[in-house]
Amino acid sequence: MKAIGFKNGFDLNEENGFEELDLPTPKAEGKDILVNVKAASINPVDTKLRTANYDDYKVLGYDAVGVVEAVGNDVDLFHVGDEVYYSGSNIRQGSNAEYQLVDERLVSIKPEHLSNVEAAALPLTSLTAFEALCEGLNISTNPEDNEGKKLLIINGAGGVGSIATQIGKHLGLTVITTASRKETRRWSEKMGADIVLNHKHHLPDELKAHRINEVDYIFDTHNSDEYFAVMAEMIKPRGKIVALVNFMDKVDLNLLKDKSVSFSFEFMFTRPKYETEDMKQHHKYLSELMKLIDRGSIKTTHYQTLKGLTVETITKAHEMIEQGNSIGKIVIDYEEK
Amino acid sequence: MKAIGFKNGFDLNEENGFEELDLPTPKAEGKDILVNVKAASINPVDTKLRTANYDDYKVLGYDAVGVVEAVGNDVDLFHVGDEVYYSGSNIRQGSNAEYQLVDERLVSIKPEHLSNVEAAALPLTSLTAFEALCEGLNISTNPEDNEGKKLLIINGAGGVGSIATQIGKHLGLTVITTASRKETRRWSEKMGADIVLNHKHHLPDELKAHRINEVDYIFDTHNSDEYFAVMAEMIKPRGKIVALVNFMDKVDLNLLKDKSVSFSFEFMFTRPKYETEDMKQHHKYLSELMKLIDRGSIKTTHYQTLKGLTVETITKAHEMIEQGNSIGKIVIDYEEK
Repeated sequence: MKAIGFKNGFDLNEENGFEELDLPTPKAEGKDILVNVKAASINPVDTKLRTANYDDYKVLGYDAVGVVEAVGNDVDLFHVGDEVYYSGSNIRQGSNAEYQLVDERLVSIKPEHLSNVEAAALPLTSLTAFEALCEGLNISTNPEDNEGKKLLIINGAGGVGSIATQIGKHLGLTVITTASRKETRRWSEKMGADIVLNHKHHLPDELKAHRINEVDYIFDTHNSDEYFAVMAEMIKPRGKIVALVNFMDKVDLNLLKDKSVSFSFEFMFTRPKYETEDMKQHHKYLSELMKLIDRGSIKTTHYQTLKGLTVETITKAHEMIEQGNSIGKIVIDYEEK
Repeated sequence: MKAIGFKNGFDLNEENGFEELDLPTPKAEGKDILVNVKAASINPVDTKLRTANYDDYKVLGYDAVGVVEAVGNDVDLFHVGDEVYYSGSNIRQGSNAEYQLVDERLVSIKPEHLSNVEAAALPLTSLTAFEALCEGLNISTNPEDNEGKKLLIINGAGGVGSIATQIGKHLGLTVITTASRKETRRWSEKMGADIVLNHKHHLPDELKAHRINEVDYIFDTHNSDEYFAVMAEMIKPRGKIVALVNFMDKVDLNLLKDKSVSFSFEFMFTRPKYETEDMKQHHKYLSELMKLIDRGSIKTTHYQTLKGLTVETITKAHEMIEQGNSIGKIVIDYEEK
């Protein structure tokens, strides 16, 4: 089968280590399904994993839509021919290939009302947003409980911010996001943000300009070091903060003490990596998302399509992610050439 | 009224600034009740607040049992003559006095089956434990949800550890505590600990000796800096940690990233200090505790009694707390001389 991979980590400013490979098509065993991948999207995690060295060829790609080609003996949830979508596991081969193995507990039937490209934009960022909101921030899934509560999402127009905004609105919260450019503000409003703050300014001042002194929840999808102190300032007593990005420096955690604040990290690959007992939660979240999309409550965050599974499209997508100012999601359509 | 107070912070190794004072009896207004204090217990927070300077005389004491002497116009929950117990607010005058004002939302009727001394041991530590377990660690209040889940409490024999152990058992958890001396191990077992580890040894090794690799929840009631790295090691993927004590140094928070762990601070005075909208949660927790005690599900953590509201008993209690190896709670009985 065709796959795009590499062996030694590389910096795209200096070289391009991606190669078109002809790898043996893997076999589905146990709880694995074999998927014929039709579209995949690229995430910041791809660019991070691209800088490491591997003993064998590494295939990236942590979002996929495809058709089930074969199932392992212990598979209960899917049949050959099912159209599915998933993010998968960071410690296995990814979706930048014609075929991919994935544990069924991480997979759901794809939303019926979305094209492959529209659906491929969603799994990794949606799982991240669901886990961050419902577990990290412990937000109730009953909108009545959330009336009048405020969620601040730092970087509202990014892949995670875009879907988190929609899930936050679906859960009945007032959603405040941040953006700085005209296009990103407009996109964030399109995703449902009630208020968009300018993150080039001091966020507590921006909040106060809207007569808001503090928020119940903060989801920092951007830079953890940069925002830690202002988050501690803006969060309500007994409020909760969740973040995605590693800190560069050690942290003055005592800033959270007086208000009894909780801080959580959200890393979407924790469940697949540690194969936790509740790994099937990813199946559940993606199935829930499928229903919300087919009901029209949530829309895709797909923004841009690149055509064909090639070294060029994968490289281009990595470059765009690394520029760091992308809007919504970049998807690669494997069926178009 | 008689009160024990001071003006300038002091170190008990160098001097004793406590004085017996004759202060005007305060008047109950608004949501305040005036309580004739019968017993009080001393906590580590007393010794911390004793080192600060105050413009006026400061009266410490953040646990009390007494009888309602008068009520403000907006008081709904209590009547003159009610026997009550509470912790109160760290920014108001404390209970080391004949009479004290306290906001009714922080107060509950005292457990019927406990003496004043037995009840005075409980409020501050119980509120801390309830908030830490049910909010910081987000443990379900339904024991069926907690079957097979493990809570590690660092320093099981202290005031907070003693009541947290009992609440943990009541919630259906397996409770593992730490202690090092024979008396503290025995006390922690008496409080209900299923396993007592020796915190003089490396805790992950101690856990493994009991064939346990990881725990769902950790409540660090002791030293945050000392235990942060081992807690990150012992916690389950997507597990939760709560701590009481400020860090001396900045923290390598990335230790929590790979497992998507949450860290919360628990500071019992957050609600009264910020007068949060849900301040009445303290009334609710103490009322719940009253029922659990009167039903026999939880027992007092009272360990030792000092007699009479005097400079001597307050001083003695502060000294005992500062030695740092106390078991359960030290209570001062104002009615005995």
